[in-house]
Amino acid sequence: MQLYSYFRSSAAYRVRIALNLKGLPYDYQPVHLLKDGGQQLGADYLSLNPSALVPTLVDGDQAIGQSLAIIEYLDETHPQPALLPATPLARARVRAIALNIACDIHPLNNLRVLKYLKHDLKVEEEAKNAWYRHWVDTGLSALEAMLAQSPETGRFCHGDTPTLADVCLVPQVFNARRFGCDLSAMPTILRIEQACSALPAFQNAAPENQPDAE
Amino acid sequence: MQLYSYFRSSAAYRVRIALNLKGLPYDYQPVHLLKDGGQQLGADYLSLNPSALVPTLVDGDQAIGQSLAIIEYLDETHPQPALLPATPLARARVRAIALNIACDIHPLNNLRVLKYLKHDLKVEEEAKNAWYRHWVDTGLSALEAMLAQSPETGRFCHGDTPTLADVCLVPQVFNARRFGCDLSAMPTILRIEQACSALPAFQNAAPENQPDAE
Repeated sequence: MQLYSYFRSSAAYRVRIALNLKGLPYDYQPVHLLKDGGQQLGADYLSLNPSALVPTLVDGDQAIGQSLAIIEYLDETHPQPALLPATPLARARVRAIALNIACDIHPLNNLRVLKYLKHDLKVEEEAKNAWYRHWVDTGLSALEAMLAQSPETGRFCHGDTPTLADVCLVPQVFNARRFGCDLSAMPTILRIEQACSALPAFQNAAPENQPDAE
Repeated sequence: MQLYSYFRSSAAYRVRIALNLKGLPYDYQPVHLLKDGGQQLGADYLSLNPSALVPTLVDGDQAIGQSLAIIEYLDETHPQPALLPATPLARARVRAIALNIACDIHPLNNLRVLKYLKHDLKVEEEAKNAWYRHWVDTGLSALEAMLAQSPETGRFCHGDTPTLADVCLVPQVFNARRFGCDLSAMPTILRIEQACSALPAFQNAAPENQPDAE
């Protein structure tokens, strides 16, 4: 398999963690989101993924976009270790946590959105950073409440093994730190992130450990 | 089951379509996103869904948030008619289309985001509408390319029966029209939307047919 990735893309980071948790080797294909006016906008990449977003997973002759669709695909084709629990209700909880990040936080703080704020809406640097922190704080505060009040929360977001929820959480916490968000009111999230960071699958997927890291 | 919904919420609209396609009856619980400073921010609703977003599905004593998590739950607990195809690759394609809308278009144009642009960033009405149309155009153009070039596209987004992809597409097209987006370069999307709109499950889920419609 080939993974088209950018070291700092949090969506690509999720897929790297999932591949590592499943012990699946892959070829790393860097797509630089800033060089050459954005390599994701080049004709070669667009033919793989018309969304012009990373990641894309290529398995055989098939290209799959969207990190959560890729991870569900990996979980269906390589079921062990499972990244979703067994019962529909538990699966719904894990997916809801993942989507809380993947829909309600991350898209608002994506590179292309920050660029639009700056170049099209002429938003000043400080207001742009406040926007970033606002959506992280709104989303992670809700998530902290969900995690802290549920008996299903264990060592990880759901029980005592990593799931799709943790795979999404860790890259989001990485981004939050990068932009100086205050996470001190989120002890459950920080505890879970620490448990994840002890695992090689998470460590090896970190931005600084990618071949295109700067 | 109870569905906490707002007639114009496109995420709630998705779940209404899915419930209708599966022939599942439900109690409609309106959550007015504008009245009372936003009923989704009230303590009662927050205890169900700390994200302060609609929809929430309550099944027995369990509350599930996030429209795509709810629809996957419904598909697992009430498998017929299936809203995801049978093979992992086809499922990945359908999920990727759904996420293309649910992650890359809709969150950027959500009510709370438009409010932030207006009140916090002091963006003028016309620039706010341009923002809205920009993300719809970017996302739906990519989707049009994905749909137009794939032999998997049929009468609907994937084959000849409605899936999770169509469930997400129709509310997004509704929103696009509401904000005056130009869809003339998206013939495949418009053809599929027309096929969906012929079905009572989609018609009965439309905003204007909800008990809280204004």
